[in-house]
Formats: sequence, C-alpha cells, structure tokens
Amino acid sequence: MRGLIIGVDLGGTKMHAAAVDENGALLHDEREKTLPEEGPDAVIGRIADLCRRINLALGVPHSELRAVCIGVPGGVDDAAGMVDKAPNLKWEKVPLAHLLSSSLGGVKVFLDNDVRVAVLGEHAYGCGRGTRTMVGIFVGTGIGGGVVVDGKIHMGQRGVAGELGHMVVKPKGPRCPCGKRGCIEALASRTSMERDVREMIAAGHKSSVIKIMKKGDRVRLTSSVIAKALAKEDPVMTKVVKRAQHHLAVAVSNVANLLDPEVIVIGGGIAERLGEDFVAPIREAAYERLLVQRDRERLRIVATELKENAAPMGAAFVARQRLAQLQPPPVRVASA
Amino acid sequence: MRGLIIGVDLGGTKMHAAAVDENGALLHDEREKTLPEEGPDAVIGRIADLCRRINLALGVPHSELRAVCIGVPGGVDDAAGMVDKAPNLKWEKVPLAHLLSSSLGGVKVFLDNDVRVAVLGEHAYGCGRGTRTMVGIFVGTGIGGGVVVDGKIHMGQRGVAGELGHMVVKPKGPRCPCGKRGCIEALASRTSMERDVREMIAAGHKSSVIKIMKKGDRVRLTSSVIAKALAKEDPVMTKVVKRAQHHLAVAVSNVANLLDPEVIVIGGGIAERLGEDFVAPIREAAYERLLVQRDRERLRIVATELKENAAPMGAAFVARQRLAQLQPPPVRVASA
Repeated sequence: MRGLIIGVDLGGTKMHAAAVDENGALLHDEREKTLPEEGPDAVIGRIADLCRRINLALGVPHSELRAVCIGVPGGVDDAAGMVDKAPNLKWEKVPLAHLLSSSLGGVKVFLDNDVRVAVLGEHAYGCGRGTRTMVGIFVGTGIGGGVVVDGKIHMGQRGVAGELGHMVVKPKGPRCPCGKRGCIEALASRTSMERDVREMIAAGHKSSVIKIMKKGDRVRLTSSVIAKALAKEDPVMTKVVKRAQHHLAVAVSNVANLLDPEVIVIGGGIAERLGEDFVAPIREAAYERLLVQRDRERLRIVATELKENAAPMGAAFVARQRLAQLQPPPVRVASA
Repeated sequence: MRGLIIGVDLGGTKMHAAAVDENGALLHDEREKTLPEEGPDAVIGRIADLCRRINLALGVPHSELRAVCIGVPGGVDDAAGMVDKAPNLKWEKVPLAHLLSSSLGGVKVFLDNDVRVAVLGEHAYGCGRGTRTMVGIFVGTGIGGGVVVDGKIHMGQRGVAGELGHMVVKPKGPRCPCGKRGCIEALASRTSMERDVREMIAAGHKSSVIKIMKKGDRVRLTSSVIAKALAKEDPVMTKVVKRAQHHLAVAVSNVANLLDPEVIVIGGGIAERLGEDFVAPIREAAYERLLVQRDRERLRIVATELKENAAPMGAAFVARQRLAQLQPPPVRVASA
C-alpha cells in the first residue's frame, strides 16, 4: 500500500504523532501540547498541523497522506467517527474524524482508544511481536489495559474489554475514581502513589519527594520525580513503589492465571522511565503467584519496548489495518 | 457423522456418562461411583462398563460406538492420551486413553479437563449457545473456570488458561490450598463455606447446619445441606452464603471488566441446586461493579442451564469436534 500513514497519541497534556512504514519502521515523529482548554477546534487544528509537519519533514506531498488514526483517551465510536467521551479533554460527542478529515483535505481518519492502540503497537511492532495471547497494562495517572487473543485485540461484546485498571484486588482498599474500592488503579497508579506519598509525609515520615517535586515544572509526582527519589533511596518513595509493585503483581498473576498469555507488557510513564527496575519485582512476585508453575518462564513479563512510541505506532498500525479492510483485494490473474 | 458419541464426567466421587446426538440432544446417561481408592484399572473398568450400559440401553451395537471423551479433574495431555495429574483421583501419569480404548475394543478416546468440558457444554448446548465471548465459573469443593473467546475455548500458551478460582480478591484473606491467600476458591467454594460455618458455630453463633449435616450420608456441607439450611433461614448459613456471593460478585465483575463477555455462567453443585436464588445477588452486585454501565444488562450472568449434564454433554461435544478434525472432509461432487 503506497502513501503515508500517521498514528497519533492524543493525550490530555500532549499529543504525539508518528509516520510508520509497512515494515513497522518509524519514519518521523512530532510532538505538540494538547491545550484542551482551548476547545476541540483548536486541538483538532493542532493535530492537523502535526500531520502536515510530518509530511513536510519527510518531503512527501500532502496528497500522499493516506490515513490517520487517533488514539483517544476515552471512548470512541469509530464507525460514526465520534469521540463519545474523553474526560481528560472534557470532550463529549465530538465528531473528531469528520473535523480532522475536513482540515486535512478529505484524508481517511480512524479512531480508537489510546490504551488499546498502545497494546496493539507493542503487539505489532514491540515486545509482543508474533504472540497469540498478550496482555498490556499501562500505569500512568490511571491504569489501562488491553487483551490480545488469537493475535487480535479482544474488544468484547460492548467494545469495552481490557479494563484491567478496575480489577478489584483489595475490597476494603482506597476509593477509586470509578466509585469502587481497591481497584488496581486506586492502589498502583501514579495518582495513588502521590496520595500515599503525601499521606506518609503528613504522618511524619521523612522524605525528599516534595522538594524534588517542587523543582519540576508541575508540583506533581511525575515519573521523573519517582525516578529521582528512588535514585536517592528516599524511604517513602521506595516503600510506596514497592507497595504498588506488590498490587500490580497480584493483578498480573490474576490475569496470567485466567488467560495464560505469552507476554504481559507493562507500559506507561513509570515503566518507560524505570524499565526493568520497575518490572523485575513485579515479575518475580507474579511468578510466585502462578497456579501452574510448570514452564512459568515461558510467560514473559516485560517493560514496554516501544515506550512512548507504543501508542502512535499502534495507531498507525490500526490505520493501515482498517485501510486494508476498505480496499478491494488485489485482482489475481490465474497462471493457468 | 454416524455412530454413537459418549462424553464422561469423571469426578472424585462419581462418574457420569452421556450419549449426545449431533443436534445436542441427550440420548441416554448413566452414573456410577468412582471409588478411586481401588486404583486406575478398576476405575477405567467402570468407565468402560458405563459406556457399554449406554450402548445396551439405546439398543446400539458396540461397533457403533465411535468415540468417547473423558472430562478429567486435573491436567491432561490429550495428544499423549495421558492424565498428567488428578489429585482427587490420586492419579499421576495414567495412560487413560490407551487403557480405556483397549477395554472398549479400540474406540477412539479423547481427554480434556472437566471444568473446560463443562464450559464447552454450556457454550455448545446450554446458556452460552451462539455467543462469542463467554466465561464459566464452577463453584464446588473448589472453584474452576473456563473462557470462550471468539466461539472457541481459550487454552492459553501452556494450556492452563481459565484458572478463575485462583484470582486473588483479598490479599490478606484465608489461605487457599494453592498456597496463596484470598483466592476466590478460599473465599467462596463449598469447602471455604464449611470452614466459615464451623468457625462461626465454634464462636458461639446458633445454627442448625451441623444437625442437618449429620442427617446426610456424609457429615459435610453439601449443596443439599446448604439448600436445606437456607430454606430454614439458618442465620449462620445465610451469612456465609451472602459473603461467598459478595466475593463471587467481585470476581465476576473483574472478569467482566477485563473481557466484556456476553454471558457469565455460574455452575457447580450450589448453582445447580439453588439456581437463580444463588445467582441473582451475585448478578446485582456484579452489575454495580461494572466500569461501563451502558447496556450492562447485555451481560447475562446466569445459573447453569445444563446443570450436572454440562460436563458429560460438553465432553461429548469435544469428542465429536475432535473426531471431525480427524476425518477427511466429505468429497463434494460439483453439480455443473
């Protein structure tokens, strides 16, 4: 299939677009702030700009842009080209595909969920290449997930499968934004880690985390703050991360016992930043919790390979796949 | 496909065999005690007897018996015809397929796991007919499960998928036979309910459960004892069942949020006996815990439809399916 394919990871704070060729090579990528407070039209204008910048950087005329797929932080209806609800963007019923397509001169635009495209990115081009069953867990301000079965993303009957972040592993645990108690998101997301750090400091534990946070551009527990505090062996940070790893290991082993996948990839900011240091303790604890111990090392529990490229590359993969489904199959001339 | 197909549910205390026709109609079934203490040869002799009794009852000559599939309470290697390990039978490395086939004059014998065939039974002939994604949870002395994705049973890479009973939902909960704490099996199986009942009675709670148990043939908390105690509104039994239902609802909603299936079937002795009375509170509590509430009633959470026939009928289904895979496709004569 000729022409350029672009995948976009549309986040609440930044957007990241990448052109990927048919072999999974990243040709070029560009970043921009999302600034959702300026409203959907401004955001969509910036997405169009990103695509044009990629065309320009690659020296490819705009007419060669074949398709764009956007990974949206929320629920989408791809058939209708509609973002149903994206809380981080404060969007509801935004006809993103139509608006972006218009501003890109009629280019085909597909929509999917951001976590789902990241899982697909790792499956198509990253640590899940060639596997039949794979699970992705993305640990960020929240926790998202996705499940690949038989080489395909598992959507479920309502299209909402993969909500690993809301697996309850501690029914009397802290309250989750979803309303339940003890979801893994309420125990191991960056938001929950920040809550735990602040609580421990308020309770009198000594820690340099607040000081490190104040040096950053936002006074928040970013992945970079976590990494710095761990490097200094900050006792509060060390304890909070250990606890999160323990809860993640329970969730990982629950999924492993249920689905017996070939690979479980842990992504998101912290895993991108800390890699094996973050994942190794999760893997060891999850292994101990597998019901069937035979050949347990055949289950790979690994940190994201594509890191922040997982979502835009996965979105590009989805665009390529959906485009192929729209094309009539090539005419074959029988040789005899 | 002509000829008779028999499925067998081989339990630790009893075995149950059923002949099922190609439309899923149960033609005839027979039961026998397992008596595993007499050793594999005696048990396998009794399975052969069961099959012969079915042939006889249906007036079908033995030569018409085409295939048998055994649902084994443990791990099997179907390609080798071997039961790897079945703790309830105290079997390890028993060449069941070869031995049974010999005593049945060379009939083809297939092996599978008992819970998996029960899930397949419900999928092929019971409440999961026609669904793409389905989950089965079987609550008995332990808790087992199985997952159907895209209309096929999901085996996983090591062939050990479906271990729903060992989903941890309460990390500081009671110890499970598997060694972990707070598995759903350690919280909601009949064995755990019996433990809880005895603990509450020992702590001074008034209950008639022990008296009801003593009237039975075994002084154990059978499904029949549970049903009788609930009918008498025994306060201890009521409380213990409520607690088990709560934990099952957490597990059901965890699986529902992960896989977004069309149906979750709850089987095993208690669900067979109590049906909707057992399942309705689980369904209501699980619905409340779904992350996406939209169209939640499209997820059916139901009691087993085939009851104790689920496993033998599912085993017959597996036998028919595997036999078909061995046959060459029928020769079609082109009409033009």
